[in-house]
Amino acid sequence: MNQNIVKMEYAVRGILPIRAMELARELKQGVKKPFDSIIFANIGDPHAMGQQPTTFFRQVVACCDYPELMNYNVFPNDVKRRASKLLSGIGGGGIGSYSDSQGPLKLREDVAQSISDGKHDCNPDDIFLCAGATDGIKSVLHLIDFGQGKDRTGVLTPIPQYPLYSATLTEMNLVQIKYYLDEDNAWAINVDSVHSIVQKAREKCTPRALVVINPGNPTGQCFSRRNVEDIVRYCSKEGLIIIADEVYQENIYAKGMQFHSFRKVANDIGLGPNDITIASFYSASKGYMGECGYRAGFMELYGLDPVVKNQFRKHRTANLCSSNAGQVIMNCIVNPPKPGDESYELFAKERENVLMSLTDKASKVSEAFNSIKGVKCNRIDGAMYAFPSITLPKRAIEAANSAKMAPDTFFCLDFLENTGICVVPGSGFGQREGTYHFRTTILPDTEKMQRFLVAFEDFYKKFVAKYTD
Amino acid sequence: MNQNIVKMEYAVRGILPIRAMELARELKQGVKKPFDSIIFANIGDPHAMGQQPTTFFRQVVACCDYPELMNYNVFPNDVKRRASKLLSGIGGGGIGSYSDSQGPLKLREDVAQSISDGKHDCNPDDIFLCAGATDGIKSVLHLIDFGQGKDRTGVLTPIPQYPLYSATLTEMNLVQIKYYLDEDNAWAINVDSVHSIVQKAREKCTPRALVVINPGNPTGQCFSRRNVEDIVRYCSKEGLIIIADEVYQENIYAKGMQFHSFRKVANDIGLGPNDITIASFYSASKGYMGECGYRAGFMELYGLDPVVKNQFRKHRTANLCSSNAGQVIMNCIVNPPKPGDESYELFAKERENVLMSLTDKASKVSEAFNSIKGVKCNRIDGAMYAFPSITLPKRAIEAANSAKMAPDTFFCLDFLENTGICVVPGSGFGQREGTYHFRTTILPDTEKMQRFLVAFEDFYKKFVAKYTD
Repeated sequence: MNQNIVKMEYAVRGILPIRAMELARELKQGVKKPFDSIIFANIGDPHAMGQQPTTFFRQVVACCDYPELMNYNVFPNDVKRRASKLLSGIGGGGIGSYSDSQGPLKLREDVAQSISDGKHDCNPDDIFLCAGATDGIKSVLHLIDFGQGKDRTGVLTPIPQYPLYSATLTEMNLVQIKYYLDEDNAWAINVDSVHSIVQKAREKCTPRALVVINPGNPTGQCFSRRNVEDIVRYCSKEGLIIIADEVYQENIYAKGMQFHSFRKVANDIGLGPNDITIASFYSASKGYMGECGYRAGFMELYGLDPVVKNQFRKHRTANLCSSNAGQVIMNCIVNPPKPGDESYELFAKERENVLMSLTDKASKVSEAFNSIKGVKCNRIDGAMYAFPSITLPKRAIEAANSAKMAPDTFFCLDFLENTGICVVPGSGFGQREGTYHFRTTILPDTEKMQRFLVAFEDFYKKFVAKYTD
Repeated sequence: MNQNIVKMEYAVRGILPIRAMELARELKQGVKKPFDSIIFANIGDPHAMGQQPTTFFRQVVACCDYPELMNYNVFPNDVKRRASKLLSGIGGGGIGSYSDSQGPLKLREDVAQSISDGKHDCNPDDIFLCAGATDGIKSVLHLIDFGQGKDRTGVLTPIPQYPLYSATLTEMNLVQIKYYLDEDNAWAINVDSVHSIVQKAREKCTPRALVVINPGNPTGQCFSRRNVEDIVRYCSKEGLIIIADEVYQENIYAKGMQFHSFRKVANDIGLGPNDITIASFYSASKGYMGECGYRAGFMELYGLDPVVKNQFRKHRTANLCSSNAGQVIMNCIVNPPKPGDESYELFAKERENVLMSLTDKASKVSEAFNSIKGVKCNRIDGAMYAFPSITLPKRAIEAANSAKMAPDTFFCLDFLENTGICVVPGSGFGQREGTYHFRTTILPDTEKMQRFLVAFEDFYKKFVAKYTD
């Protein structure tokens, strides 16, 4: 079998969640545990953690599934209007037909319009609808796969990173070139240090792209405008494609913080499609909507050579199309109800509730971690995660080594067994040698999150005491 | 960029449909043409050709999208029951959550039960839900990718074949080993000739798998039980994995013909999971349901080494999950309403209408082709396609060569320009050197199909006359 598949690792669904599922089964079977239920804080799945879907989105997709519903007095008129418009935009025989592989033009136009803001234009021809950002990112990485030996494609990925990147690079036999985010500086990117890494990497491969995740996963940072400018300038100069994972752009919590799109910042500093190539990714799974299960997303391929874009388009056709139900959801996201529409008020309330609750938890979580001696957590600017560093006693590290486990895996597993709380060890995302972290989502509801923080403090103190002479 | 992507070809969405779309746009702009509308007979997309969706499926999925609908008196009770059962089976927070990467256990159990028939058991652990058969097939081919030079994986594909196979093999840099279906013998597989091809291929690569498409695409054949047995025995002996594309198994039209599952036939002749590996694929897009736009399917991986299966499972987790809306549709397909259920009568009527209409068209289409001198068409046993051979005059072939086109592409393009009917040239699927074919679906409604056949006869005669001295 394919040895690249054997080599690939995907920690978010790795040993911790597998054990957590087993524990859940054991609980169901009546096995006694020091906890009553599992808190799955390992995966960014808002609805699984109790977040409610956005009514407007679901009404529109239900109406597209079964257009007969338009004849009943069940849905507001703007829902019916939107469903009719989408069914005609998808073309063919409705939602059950294949749609255009790139995404139906009408739907891409809506995406483009949501990106255009007067100062920055977006061309619907640059937009590709896809089955979640994962699908888009994998197919773009596949596109730039190239050459052998020193000509083998290298891709710069942040450390820590979302393991989709390392897993996909391994799977495709591309070279992962690691650059470190600066934990002491709010997880910013240091362009000078990226440059020396690129220089060194050129001895063994050809760096062709740089991945940025902003807001950050697992780090929860939001890059400053200045930082984004620096990166864009650097990549333009070095001819590196920017793979901009911007799926958390709706999730900004820190006061005064703002999301800066890599593509728009590039334009603002005078870089056009001939100066830089930026692939940006967006997803229905994150933001305030959290519609993971529909597998919907889009990418904007800005500045891509038209010949290459045509090849990419051809390549996408062999996948036929992404789910139309997902494309419907995506359309509602980029073009939500406007003030005056029948569904607006409810929509705005639902959206605000989710974002306010996340904002509230974001500050509480980092504060709680920072109040514990030995734990340090950067401010959660955005996304859905905290990535605190934890100090582990020397004897705990030895015990982990004896158990042939990364020390943070050893810690997280023990935490899970004692509290029923599932987080992901930092080693699954990468971290500076000798440091230890874990990633937790901030998605469990306020009460569960509180239970989490209390249990963590208690467990961590006992763990440290146990392994300290 | 990746040169394998440059090399790959995907005829079903190639030059013909692109030109047909342009013609549709020109018609809309009021440009005069010798026809009023385009008939897209190039792609197996039933709903786009006017086939109506199955009410029960759509009601269930709408109910899962917006569970509030269960409180209205809009849907029958069995729809509500099914939706509740599925929402609890998917787990998490309903259809908006990620579900298990392999497919939720409850849903896989329903799939397994639909395959089990008393004589043949199916293990839910062998079932993987996926985003249409395409997704499944690509990931299995990726799994068996292996080695360099003489150890490079070779995959036997029929000629003619569905271009997904050649495109994916090119993309993954695997060796396509072509074996010919026997047109004079109802497109059967000749195992002796396969064997000599395997022997010869071993000089330059390692054949590891054999693709079979049954019922056939583009050929519309249904293999005899005897033929299936021969293939299974041969693959078991030679250690070849069978990639059984069985997405058209519901579409059998010829009287007395029956679909034979490769896996079940293997069991019947005494071959178990230690004797043979068979990956079978099924899709929501075909059959009587034609739900292409939901991107739903499943695969059964029978006899796969457990270690490899675990690696495959891990690999699938990096895709998170397939669309839950699609999984809901798939569940309705494998577990449709039963006699006595509120929705049964309507369901049975809808299903029968579709299959009867296809059966009717299948015989009319092959008869009409065979009534034309110079055209020959095997009986359409199943699937959704006819693949007639056409005799082309020598001067037409020369004209095609001057135009740097395959002769059948030249013919199909001329047919399109004159009639507005879009079919796919045989060269896109592969054919014996010196023969020419095209593939048409039998999906246009009876009236359109009639218009097609009349227009074809007229055009073909004129075309032959024009290029005959």
